[in-house]
Amino acid sequence: MGAGPVHEALAALRLVDHHCHGVVTADLDRAGFESLLTEGEAWPGISPFDSPVGVAVRRHCAPLLDLPRHAPAEDYLARRAELGAREVNRRFLAAAGTEVFCVDTGFTPDRLTAPRELAKAAGGRAYEVVRLEAVAEAVAAGGVEPDAYAETFRAAALEAVRRPGVVAVKSVAAYRTGFDLDPARPSDTDVTEAARRWLAEGGGRLADPVLVRQLLWTAVDLGLPLQLHTGFGDADIRLHRVDPTHLTDWLHLTAGTIPVLLLHCWPYQRQAAYLSAVFEQVYLDVGLTLHHVGPARAGAVLAEATEITPFRKLLYSSDAYGVAEFYHLGALAFRQGLAGLLQERVDADELSLPDALRIAAWAGGDNARRLYGLPPTDTDPHPPSTDRHSD
Amino acid sequence: MGAGPVHEALAALRLVDHHCHGVVTADLDRAGFESLLTEGEAWPGISPFDSPVGVAVRRHCAPLLDLPRHAPAEDYLARRAELGAREVNRRFLAAAGTEVFCVDTGFTPDRLTAPRELAKAAGGRAYEVVRLEAVAEAVAAGGVEPDAYAETFRAAALEAVRRPGVVAVKSVAAYRTGFDLDPARPSDTDVTEAARRWLAEGGGRLADPVLVRQLLWTAVDLGLPLQLHTGFGDADIRLHRVDPTHLTDWLHLTAGTIPVLLLHCWPYQRQAAYLSAVFEQVYLDVGLTLHHVGPARAGAVLAEATEITPFRKLLYSSDAYGVAEFYHLGALAFRQGLAGLLQERVDADELSLPDALRIAAWAGGDNARRLYGLPPTDTDPHPPSTDRHSD
Amino acid sequence: MGAGPVHEALAALRLVDHHCHGVVTADLDRAGFESLLTEGEAWPGISPFDSPVGVAVRRHCAPLLDLPRHAPAEDYLARRAELGAREVNRRFLAAAGTEVFCVDTGFTPDRLTAPRELAKAAGGRAYEVVRLEAVAEAVAAGGVEPDAYAETFRAAALEAVRRPGVVAVKSVAAYRTGFDLDPARPSDTDVTEAARRWLAEGGGRLADPVLVRQLLWTAVDLGLPLQLHTGFGDADIRLHRVDPTHLTDWLHLTAGTIPVLLLHCWPYQRQAAYLSAVFEQVYLDVGLTLHHVGPARAGAVLAEATEITPFRKLLYSSDAYGVAEFYHLGALAFRQGLAGLLQERVDADELSLPDALRIAAWAGGDNARRLYGLPPTDTDPHPPSTDRHSD
Repeated sequence: MGAGPVHEALAALRLVDHHCHGVVTADLDRAGFESLLTEGEAWPGISPFDSPVGVAVRRHCAPLLDLPRHAPAEDYLARRAELGAREVNRRFLAAAGTEVFCVDTGFTPDRLTAPRELAKAAGGRAYEVVRLEAVAEAVAAGGVEPDAYAETFRAAALEAVRRPGVVAVKSVAAYRTGFDLDPARPSDTDVTEAARRWLAEGGGRLADPVLVRQLLWTAVDLGLPLQLHTGFGDADIRLHRVDPTHLTDWLHLTAGTIPVLLLHCWPYQRQAAYLSAVFEQVYLDVGLTLHHVGPARAGAVLAEATEITPFRKLLYSSDAYGVAEFYHLGALAFRQGLAGLLQERVDADELSLPDALRIAAWAGGDNARRLYGLPPTDTDPHPPSTDRHSD
Repeated sequence: MGAGPVHEALAALRLVDHHCHGVVTADLDRAGFESLLTEGEAWPGISPFDSPVGVAVRRHCAPLLDLPRHAPAEDYLARRAELGAREVNRRFLAAAGTEVFCVDTGFTPDRLTAPRELAKAAGGRAYEVVRLEAVAEAVAAGGVEPDAYAETFRAAALEAVRRPGVVAVKSVAAYRTGFDLDPARPSDTDVTEAARRWLAEGGGRLADPVLVRQLLWTAVDLGLPLQLHTGFGDADIRLHRVDPTHLTDWLHLTAGTIPVLLLHCWPYQRQAAYLSAVFEQVYLDVGLTLHHVGPARAGAVLAEATEITPFRKLLYSSDAYGVAEFYHLGALAFRQGLAGLLQERVDADELSLPDALRIAAWAGGDNARRLYGLPPTDTDPHPPSTDRHSD
Repeated sequence: MGAGPVHEALAALRLVDHHCHGVVTADLDRAGFESLLTEGEAWPGISPFDSPVGVAVRRHCAPLLDLPRHAPAEDYLARRAELGAREVNRRFLAAAGTEVFCVDTGFTPDRLTAPRELAKAAGGRAYEVVRLEAVAEAVAAGGVEPDAYAETFRAAALEAVRRPGVVAVKSVAAYRTGFDLDPARPSDTDVTEAARRWLAEGGGRLADPVLVRQLLWTAVDLGLPLQLHTGFGDADIRLHRVDPTHLTDWLHLTAGTIPVLLLHCWPYQRQAAYLSAVFEQVYLDVGLTLHHVGPARAGAVLAEATEITPFRKLLYSSDAYGVAEFYHLGALAFRQGLAGLLQERVDADELSLPDALRIAAWAGGDNARRLYGLPPTDTDPHPPSTDRHSD
């Protein structure tokens, strides 16, 4: 667990989870739970429990279900079923100690809690992050002429971000084309032509390079912080194409406009750190990675991610999706990993304790509060009327 | 050395070395030994002993030749010559504690032990891995018409893998083209045309991108596990082209067919881990790297390689070639490195001891036994009739 | 700080800093100092002091200005101004314990100390490194016909390197094109044509791929060691294009000619290590990185950089530029980082103490002395006449 004043401070810190998803509200059977435990799939003969994240769940989540540490997977699943999804979700969300959730609502929203529900179960507040690919695909599904696509998409995105509680937009360009794109804003003609092809095929998954570029430039027009998935994800990723340094030319072109938040980043956390050190607008987190590597390796990943990163550029996210365990595990791995590396430096007199506490508070929440314009920390864990999210 | 029950368990484990080569049977002079000690060459004024692997040899191999730890290179070479190749090979192979060797027989077989000899010297069993480039190049050398090349190669490969004791095939596509290939199976016309060009030049080293693709797809047809060199190797490698994530599209196309074993991987061990986490058919090892970095860094490399890797996906290999020291060093670095990281987690209560022992047994042998269909551990170190290999 | 005989030996070692720049001679105000503290810029609301390098300056540089460790940035800047640039520079340069500086004189020479001044303030000797891009751009600025450009540049470079005290040339091709270049020497026709385009635009920043190739091949003709910026730098870098393994084909073509020194390398230190292990002519350092990550992470970066690097291939550089703090911090981070990893191996009996001391002496100076043909260590810290540099 680690010990010392930095550990204590981080353990008590109410976090801002600047990028996460909702949690599944239905009860999950073994197959359903296991499929959510991995970025792969549940394969015959290879349980997702036999992995670093599975070990971390059995170690750190079992006690919250009244089981011994390292309980067998079977016991874990049985107890989870016995308690039911509502109670399980409540326990892990409360344990996460997260005050603010910024929730990407654009992926499988039907089976997940809405931001308001998530925040309520956790005793926190929720804001919304609008996934631009979902907006674009809805525009296509709604019917639009190719030459009206760009403007209709822009208007729909603008409407989406004007809803109360929206603090950022997000793109999953990483999944669709990767970042080795022409960085320039595409011409109207090119966009119309690409939209024509896409719409002629019935719309659907937006993966045309011209339309992805147009989406990224529309984000610039919207003026809100842009969250970008980079690095680690499921098998749809081509990992070598989502090294965020491929965005360098685009970052030069968009300098002085919107903040860009590099999500996840692993195994390119050093590349992301470089961008955050040389571009004013670039921030990063190592969400998703933290619960997959678990507390045993979170410190090592964070140490690389922070080698040259300015301390105002590091954010916390869980990128939790589906299972409530990940909100708890992500928060735990972040707290223990960051506390471990900061306390070690304090102990070696490489860092003063006040500086360590300041860095912890910045990364755990203040950087995100400043960036998204969120109100300061609320110490009341169940504020009756601070949920700005409306749906 | 490290201590604790995980160290003890790994020290006692009879390993499956799922990818190695034979050992040179002739006595080696200084130049001959030094040239085998490095993936580079022996350069004037820079002894390969002055490197991490050289330090590891002097530390961990000298005592097996009755010398003090850290003996000077000169003493080491003199004692090695005095004992003679047969005795030196016997000592290191026995010390490796390896029960099963899967031997790539396709590279310079004339100067190396055959699998049977290797196993005999080590008191273990040997199986064979067929290097497909060697089969293809033998087909070309034997004379074939371009339009018959694909079928003749397929038939020769099929014949090769039907020999008793063959458990896998291997490709060194990494050395020939790298992985930035069109992932689709090439058309018959394209293969014939490429074969025409290659054969017109007299065959030889197969490095045509179309023929390399055809070779990889032939591996799919053969149905055996495919070992793929990735990452670190000699100067023939273009390292940035052998990041295994360049294989992602090909892995999608071949999902559900054959297991794919990513060998070596360094410095792309995290990229390989990602593939093993999201593709059912992908496995990895960090062989070759382990003896080159030595026990001092093997734990650090393994820690990265296992950050997200499912525990049933990690294998052990030495990739030892030529000098018997590497069988011992590879095994030692694997045992100590893996034990160190597992024991540390047990000590921090991040992992239970039974889980740690299970993970060690899986990675050290059971995963390979399952994958290659090998019989379970044999506790008799000198089984008279268990060598299935025939030649 | 760490303790033990390896720490003591490295602390006492007079270093060869084989790649650095001059120090600003003028007094610096807060904005001026902060802008030199970062590879980015000084951004509103984000002080460069709030970064790993800022923490390292407050920890390790404040005491040399008679302030407590971890002094606030304000106090640091006030005291720095009070002492004045000359005294501040003198203190940090003396503290660096560097005997030899190899100074790149081709970037903003007007505001920096010349090599002779730098060495005098430090009580050491200075040599010069000629930046070839500066030579080429001066040739263009001086007026030249396109078909005479290649020969005029070659003659100017030859004249530059014949000046007394010049020991190497340097290229910043990393900043101009990256390394994904055709490796072959360009034809005279191609060079003339490229020069025609460049000169027609008025010369200036040399970034044409053909002319950059021609520059690298001119370096081969000059016969001196070539320093190449790789990896980490400011926002002009496209990091994914400066992975040094993209140079592999060029290294094959130029094998047997000049030594090639890969500077900085981070985050590609393992890729650089691979090249140093398989190409006789390749050497590396992790300068620039060391002071940016600070002593807290220098050991981790060095551990990766030395995983497979032959011990005669690792050099020390600070890549200090502008602020004198970086000469001290770079040297401190190198000494502590290398001592930490070597002492740890000695303590674990993975390395003998004599070997550790030999490796430290090689990396800290002897490798550079051998490579550049420098005279052996001078124990008189203020030699009256050993400054071979002339200007």
